[in-house]
Amino acid sequence: MQESIEQYMQTVGQQARTASRVLAGASTQTKNNALSAIYTALQNSETAILAANQVDMTKAHNNNLDSALLDRLELTPTRFKGMLQGLKDVIALTDPIGEITDMAFRPTGIQLGKMRVPLGVVGMIYESRPNVTLEAASLALKSGNAIILRGGSEALESNQAIAAAIQHGLTAAGVPEHAVQVLNTPDRAAVGQLITMPEYVDVIVPRGGKGLIERITNEARVPVIKHLDGNCHVFVEAQADLQKALPIALNAKTHRYGVCNAMETLLVDENVAEEFLPRIAELYAEKKVELRGCAETQRILGESIVPATEEDWYTEYLGPILAVKVVTGLDEAIEHINKYGSHHTDSIITENFSLARQFLARVDSSSVMINASTRFADGFEYGLGAEIGISTDKIHARGPVGLEGLTSQKWIVFGDGQIRQ
Amino acid sequence: MQESIEQYMQTVGQQARTASRVLAGASTQTKNNALSAIYTALQNSETAILAANQVDMTKAHNNNLDSALLDRLELTPTRFKGMLQGLKDVIALTDPIGEITDMAFRPTGIQLGKMRVPLGVVGMIYESRPNVTLEAASLALKSGNAIILRGGSEALESNQAIAAAIQHGLTAAGVPEHAVQVLNTPDRAAVGQLITMPEYVDVIVPRGGKGLIERITNEARVPVIKHLDGNCHVFVEAQADLQKALPIALNAKTHRYGVCNAMETLLVDENVAEEFLPRIAELYAEKKVELRGCAETQRILGESIVPATEEDWYTEYLGPILAVKVVTGLDEAIEHINKYGSHHTDSIITENFSLARQFLARVDSSSVMINASTRFADGFEYGLGAEIGISTDKIHARGPVGLEGLTSQKWIVFGDGQIRQ
Repeated sequence: MQESIEQYMQTVGQQARTASRVLAGASTQTKNNALSAIYTALQNSETAILAANQVDMTKAHNNNLDSALLDRLELTPTRFKGMLQGLKDVIALTDPIGEITDMAFRPTGIQLGKMRVPLGVVGMIYESRPNVTLEAASLALKSGNAIILRGGSEALESNQAIAAAIQHGLTAAGVPEHAVQVLNTPDRAAVGQLITMPEYVDVIVPRGGKGLIERITNEARVPVIKHLDGNCHVFVEAQADLQKALPIALNAKTHRYGVCNAMETLLVDENVAEEFLPRIAELYAEKKVELRGCAETQRILGESIVPATEEDWYTEYLGPILAVKVVTGLDEAIEHINKYGSHHTDSIITENFSLARQFLARVDSSSVMINASTRFADGFEYGLGAEIGISTDKIHARGPVGLEGLTSQKWIVFGDGQIRQ
Repeated sequence: MQESIEQYMQTVGQQARTASRVLAGASTQTKNNALSAIYTALQNSETAILAANQVDMTKAHNNNLDSALLDRLELTPTRFKGMLQGLKDVIALTDPIGEITDMAFRPTGIQLGKMRVPLGVVGMIYESRPNVTLEAASLALKSGNAIILRGGSEALESNQAIAAAIQHGLTAAGVPEHAVQVLNTPDRAAVGQLITMPEYVDVIVPRGGKGLIERITNEARVPVIKHLDGNCHVFVEAQADLQKALPIALNAKTHRYGVCNAMETLLVDENVAEEFLPRIAELYAEKKVELRGCAETQRILGESIVPATEEDWYTEYLGPILAVKVVTGLDEAIEHINKYGSHHTDSIITENFSLARQFLARVDSSSVMINASTRFADGFEYGLGAEIGISTDKIHARGPVGLEGLTSQKWIVFGDGQIRQ
């Protein structure tokens, strides 16, 4: 069996590499035709895909999987419409490939610039979120890359149904069918193979639990665009406008729980804590959000507040729980965020220009915000059309990764016979 | 001993991380003051540095090291002046850190853009080229990064002399002395440590032999910006202007042998081979360049030409040897380059617009040129001020890596109380 997995993955890899060569040279029209054909195929398969998702959901319920996972797994008709709209958005995006920029003459007379090109083959390992299957496939196609997809096993039926529609669309449009391959094996050895085939795979995008990402980072022989956890903060500074702070703190925590850009720790300046904390606590109580506070938070809100442990500051709850800490000011807030946070998304609420500017410069996260909800850190909200992940790395792509994160730039030089002196 | 190397590297890593936090917040003026102080210190140490280099050169001669290595190792007064000029160029470069770009409003009312930030700590492993010590240190400082340098053992004396001047400059300018650390041990275990400390090192830039790079890629737990070999090509197309082709083919091979952007294989269209090959062969003969040709090249130039083996097409000679192949046209040339080349730098010589455009799009290399010498693929020639390496990777940085390759961009969002609907 082990050997046959190896053979299977070698075949998948070779097929992806071959398809990627065709895709790299495909015109914008060819790629958009393929995406449109996939759109039609998905429309025609809505019933089948939602039924497949119901099979996955039932199994997940029976296995008592947690609510965050169920939320990610579920495809409702509304979410399915959202998926189709996302695909339309990708079709409407400008094709990044072949874009030539920055052509400028150097003193030697050569004219130097950059041309945008695909990465080649993308390997994607992700949670049980069927919508990601389509988002990743469509972004890869639009950017001229082949992609190998390995979704969470809980979404197996949903992913196979979506994959069938994608295959149908690719074939209808005359694009290599191996441009998008969804792995059909639950064997973990397949992942081990996928991340150690630099001859066939140019970049790995892993999403999921910390354990998975760490395993992949340790074992990969291919560059990795990591998507680690989202331990996001909102810092209500002393000069915050509470008419902004209250809805933002509420939105960042309660708009959706099972997502990486939800706030997990609320930081409040001591000069505004007495006024702000009771008001926001009332709003959280209505939403049944459990608060875990520092000693000062407990003093203000009462002993019913669960005391926060050191572990709480590190935790991504992905549910209706929030850690709350009162801090002495900007410096302590920034220190806390850079120490306990996951370098994902953090927001300051303040009307003070200089403090906002300092927060912006000193918080070491992929998205840093002023007077806005952390929930905006998202490929759609950022106008990327769709996202293949939110990178917590600093190398290559940071924050929401869209089309551009799946491309590279090569230098180009136009000359007239120039030689180096 | 093993344990003490580990302790040493842990200390080096911690010191670099601490220094990087200070550097990330350093003003442009502070960084430039430090670079100017290093400039002065180097000027005052010229005699000592050249003397140290003579010690290295003598040892290298006695060990019968090859001419390419000797060429890279040697510091002449002229090259030393070039190093100082390079440092001046870096001081004159615009500080990339803090640059805010692309601020634009989204339909939700948030204003989204990007801010450029340092990577943090750079670990650099490189050949016995003392000038690289200064180039890498100055680029790291200018871009707000701390750097740990591990040069080739043949350049030990030269590097220690340069490091002493750098330390002197840092101290004089009041910048953390551990912003630049040159490892003082020849123990290979130090490299093993350096590439597996993600808590202290954000990116590794390895340069050197293929074996070294492969070892580092396999063992690293830190993102790697690879600098593999430079197997560069010039393709003289049928519609080439030979008045351009002759000087370019000569320059690309003979301007300097021991460098990665030198041409290693010359490809000639069969329609121009009879005219072009004898003329260029005469020029190469004057420079004592050995030609290794395909059968057709031998037919045209005579049996004195050494036959090229399959191995020759893969080889980076780094010396006065050139492989020559006659091809049937653009397709074969591109196929050859993408198969045997190292994705470094390749140039086409042609007056045909459409063929030039195809070559540009289809050659999968970090620099693709039209009617120019491959020798231009270089950080100085590209106006980057200096280069820390030439990346043959597609991820993060490709081609010559200068200041920008040592930075990252974070997303920034300005709001007015916006929440996600």
